[in-house]
Amino acid sequence: MATRRYAFGRVDEATHPDSMRATVAEFVSTCIFVFIGEGSVLALNKIYKDSGSSAGELMAVALAHAFGLFAAISASMHVSGGHVNPAVTFGALLGGRISVLRAVYYWVAQLLGAIAAALLIRLVTNNMSPVSFTLAIGEGAMHALIFEIVMTFGLMYTVYGTAIDPKRGTNGALAPLAIGLIVGANILVGGPFEGACMNPARAFGPSLVGWSWHYHWIYWIGPLIGAGIAALVYEYIVIPTEPPHPHQPLAPEDY
Amino acid sequence: MATRRYAFGRVDEATHPDSMRATVAEFVSTCIFVFIGEGSVLALNKIYKDSGSSAGELMAVALAHAFGLFAAISASMHVSGGHVNPAVTFGALLGGRISVLRAVYYWVAQLLGAIAAALLIRLVTNNMSPVSFTLAIGEGAMHALIFEIVMTFGLMYTVYGTAIDPKRGTNGALAPLAIGLIVGANILVGGPFEGACMNPARAFGPSLVGWSWHYHWIYWIGPLIGAGIAALVYEYIVIPTEPPHPHQPLAPEDY
Amino acid sequence: MATRRYAFGRVDEATHPDSMRATVAEFVSTCIFVFIGEGSVLALNKIYKDSGSSAGELMAVALAHAFGLFAAISASMHVSGGHVNPAVTFGALLGGRISVLRAVYYWVAQLLGAIAAALLIRLVTNNMSPVSFTLAIGEGAMHALIFEIVMTFGLMYTVYGTAIDPKRGTNGALAPLAIGLIVGANILVGGPFEGACMNPARAFGPSLVGWSWHYHWIYWIGPLIGAGIAALVYEYIVIPTEPPHPHQPLAPEDY
Amino acid sequence: MATRRYAFGRVDEATHPDSMRATVAEFVSTCIFVFIGEGSVLALNKIYKDSGSSAGELMAVALAHAFGLFAAISASMHVSGGHVNPAVTFGALLGGRISVLRAVYYWVAQLLGAIAAALLIRLVTNNMSPVSFTLAIGEGAMHALIFEIVMTFGLMYTVYGTAIDPKRGTNGALAPLAIGLIVGANILVGGPFEGACMNPARAFGPSLVGWSWHYHWIYWIGPLIGAGIAALVYEYIVIPTEPPHPHQPLAPEDY
Repeated sequence: MATRRYAFGRVDEATHPDSMRATVAEFVSTCIFVFIGEGSVLALNKIYKDSGSSAGELMAVALAHAFGLFAAISASMHVSGGHVNPAVTFGALLGGRISVLRAVYYWVAQLLGAIAAALLIRLVTNNMSPVSFTLAIGEGAMHALIFEIVMTFGLMYTVYGTAIDPKRGTNGALAPLAIGLIVGANILVGGPFEGACMNPARAFGPSLVGWSWHYHWIYWIGPLIGAGIAALVYEYIVIPTEPPHPHQPLAPEDY
Repeated sequence: MATRRYAFGRVDEATHPDSMRATVAEFVSTCIFVFIGEGSVLALNKIYKDSGSSAGELMAVALAHAFGLFAAISASMHVSGGHVNPAVTFGALLGGRISVLRAVYYWVAQLLGAIAAALLIRLVTNNMSPVSFTLAIGEGAMHALIFEIVMTFGLMYTVYGTAIDPKRGTNGALAPLAIGLIVGANILVGGPFEGACMNPARAFGPSLVGWSWHYHWIYWIGPLIGAGIAALVYEYIVIPTEPPHPHQPLAPEDY
Repeated sequence: MATRRYAFGRVDEATHPDSMRATVAEFVSTCIFVFIGEGSVLALNKIYKDSGSSAGELMAVALAHAFGLFAAISASMHVSGGHVNPAVTFGALLGGRISVLRAVYYWVAQLLGAIAAALLIRLVTNNMSPVSFTLAIGEGAMHALIFEIVMTFGLMYTVYGTAIDPKRGTNGALAPLAIGLIVGANILVGGPFEGACMNPARAFGPSLVGWSWHYHWIYWIGPLIGAGIAALVYEYIVIPTEPPHPHQPLAPEDY
Repeated sequence: MATRRYAFGRVDEATHPDSMRATVAEFVSTCIFVFIGEGSVLALNKIYKDSGSSAGELMAVALAHAFGLFAAISASMHVSGGHVNPAVTFGALLGGRISVLRAVYYWVAQLLGAIAAALLIRLVTNNMSPVSFTLAIGEGAMHALIFEIVMTFGLMYTVYGTAIDPKRGTNGALAPLAIGLIVGANILVGGPFEGACMNPARAFGPSLVGWSWHYHWIYWIGPLIGAGIAALVYEYIVIPTEPPHPHQPLAPEDY
C-alpha cells in the first residue's frame, strides 16, 4: 500500500510536509463546524428559556449544521480531503484511501478542534452549559445505535460517491454541498429521536466540556460502524476494481 | 437502438458489468432517500403527539426530501445516472436513453431499496407506523392524479434539461441539486393537498410495510404519466434531432 | 448589431431554428415556475383556513419560489438563456444581448406559460381562487413601485454578473442557483410589504385567471424599470468595452 | 510586492482601469446585500407589530442574509473578488492579496453601498426605523466581541479556502455559496446573542441612517480582528510557501 496514490492526499501521506497543513486544516474546520453546530442549539435555548420542541427549531439546528459543515468542508477539501469527522476518516482508512498515520493525525486534530469549539462557545455565550446528545423518551439505546449506523452510512456513502470515487467526474464539484446537506436532512429525521450526531467529534467536545457522558458511546460506535460499512460497500462493490482507462493514468486534478 | 450510446450509461447496458454496479447504486441511493423522506414525516410525529399542520412542518418535510434526494443523486449520478425514482427511469426509457433491461434492473432495485428503507425506519423509530401518502379533505382523486402528473412533469423536465440533454454543457454541474430542490419546491406546493410524491418507490415502501393502499395507485399512475410526457416533450421538441457539430463527436465526459 | 454574437443565443436569433426550441423552453420553464410559486401560496391557504402571516409561511413561499426558479432556469439555461421572466428578457434586450424578435417570442411564451400554470393550479386545487399580488396595509403604491425596482435591479444585476457577462468565467456555474436564491431572499424582504414579484409573468397569470387587477401595473412597471437599469449599469459600466484578449476570440463554450 | 500577482485582481491593482469597475461592483453588491439583510429584519417587524423571537424568524433572517450574500458575491466575484465586506477586504490586505489602494477603494465603496441600501430600505418601507445591531440581555460586550471574532474567523477562513487559495482547484466553484451559507449558519448561532454581524458595512449603514451607535464599535473591531487572524493563519500556515509545481506557472484561469 506504500506505493498507492491516495485520493485524499496525493503522495505518501506519512512523510510529506503537506500532512501538517492538512492536520491544521482538519483542526480549524472541525472547530468551525462544532462551534456552529453546538452554538445553534444554545441559540435556541437563548430565545426560549423553557425550550420546547418545534419543527422550526429542528430546522434551525439542521440548517446550521448543514451550512456550517458545507463551508467547513469547502475550505479544507483541497487541503485535507475535508473529513471534519473521525467517522469519515475511519471510513477512508478502511477503504484504503488514507494511511494509518494520517488518520491518527486527523483524529487528534478533529477532537482538539471540537474541544476548542466547545470551550469557545461556552466563553462567548457567557457560560451556558453545553448540550450533549442524548435519547428522546421512548427511544432505546439499541434503536439509537442503529439509527446512527444508518444515518452515517448515508453520509459516508455520499462522501465516497462525491469526494473519493476516482470515477466521480464533474459530480465532485458539488461534493461539499451534498455532504453538508445530507447531514442536515438526517438531522431532520433523527434529531427528535436521538439527536442525529453522525460525528464523534461533534459529540465529544460538548460532552467533555459539559462533562456529560450519558449514552456517549452510541455517538462513537454508531458513526464508526456506519461509515465503515459504507466505505467497504462503496470501495469493493460500487467502484470497479480495474482502472477504467489503463493507458491514461488519472491526472492529479482528478483527485 | 442497439448501437446508440446512452446518456445515462455509456455502453451497451444489458451486458456490461457496470450494470450490476449501477443497480446496486440505485438500490442504495433509493434506500437513503426513502429513509430520509419517510423518516422526516415520522420525526414530526415524534415531536407532536397530536400533530397538526403548519408551514414549519411542511418546510421540514420538504427540505429533508430535497436535501436527501440531492445527496442520493449526487452519490450515484456517475454510476447509474442517479434516477432514484421509477418514474424517472420510465421517462428515460421512453426517451430512448436507457435500455429496457436496465430499466427493469433499476425498478427492482428502487423498490427493494424503498422497502429496505421503510423497514429500517420502522426499526429505528421503535416500531412507529409508516405514514402513507393520501389525499387531504376536499381534494378529489382526479385532482390529485393531475397534481402528480404536473409536478412529476416539472421534475422529469428538470432531469432531462440538466442531466440527460447532451447539449446541456456546464449546466449539468448543478443537476443533482436542481432535481433535489424542485422536489422540495413541489412538496411545498402539493404537500397539503395530496402529499406530493412524484416517486412510486417513495410511496411503495411505506405502503407495503404499513399495509395501507388507499389511493396508492395515484402515486404510480401520476408520476409515470408526468415523467413520460416530460421525456417525450424534451426528447422530441427541445433537443435538436441533428447533432450540433457533426464533425466533433461528443466526448465521453459530456455525458 | 446583426453580426454580434449574442451571449444568450449563439447565432443570429431571428432566423435560426433554435429560436423555436428556446421559445418552447421559456414556455415550459415559466409554467413550472409560476405553478410552483402560485401553488405555494395556495398550499398555505389549504393548511390554514383563516390564514394569518408568520415567518414560517413567508419562508415556505420564499423557498418554493427560489427552488422552483432555480430548477426552471437550470433546465432552460442552455436552450434559451433561462430568462423565465419578461423583465429579464427586457434587460437582456436593452443590453443588446438578445434580438427584438427573440424578445417578443420569449414574452409571448412566458405569458402563455404563466396563464397555463395559473389554470393548472386552479384545476388541481379543486378551484381555489388565485391569489394576486397586492399591497400590505400602510404600503403606498409609489413605495411598492420603488420596492419592485430595487429588488428587480438586484435580480437582473445577478443575472448579468453570473449568466450574461462574457468575462464571468467559472463563476457562471452557479448562475441558476444565484438567480433563484436572490429571488427567495427578496421575497423574505418585500413579501410582507407588497408581495415581492420581480416578474410580470408571475403576476399576470394568476391575475388573469382570478380577474383581479388591483395595483397590477406596479408588477409590470417596477420589474421592467429595475431590470432595465441593472442591464444598462452592468453592460456599460461593469463590462469593459474592449475585449480582454483581442487575439483570443472567446470560445463558444464561454457563452 | 509590486510585482506580485494578486489572486483577487490579476495585475497591478492601483493603476489598472479594472479598479474602477471593481469598485463599482463592490458598491452595487454591498448595496444589494445590505438592502436584503436589513430589509429581512424589517419585514418581520411588518408581520408582527409586537415582534417576539422565534426559531422561524431567526431562520428567515439567516436565509435572507445567506441567499442575498451568495448572489451578491456571485455577481461580483470575477470583477472585484466579491468581498462585499470591509473585514474580508482587510483580511485580503493583511494576507498580501490586495493592494492598500484597492482596499481603500473597496472600503469606501462598501460603506457607501451600505448607506445607499439603508436609505433605500427606509424609503420603500415608508420610513420604518432601521434596526441596529445590539446585544441581547445577559450578553456582555466582551463576549459579543469574541463572538464576532470567532464567527468572522470562520467566514474569512472559508473565503480564503474557497476563493483566494491558489491551490483550491475545482473547490472554488462553490465559493460564493460556501461564503453565503456560513454567514447564514453563523446568524443561526450568534443572532440571538448579539445579532451576528461579521461585516462592518452591514452594521454601519443602518446605524448611520437610524443614528444609533450603541455598541457599534463591536461590529467593527470584532470582524476586523477575526478576519485578520483567519487571513494570517491561512496565508502563512495552510498555504505552502513554495509553489507546488515550480516549472508550471499557475495559469490565469486558476485565479
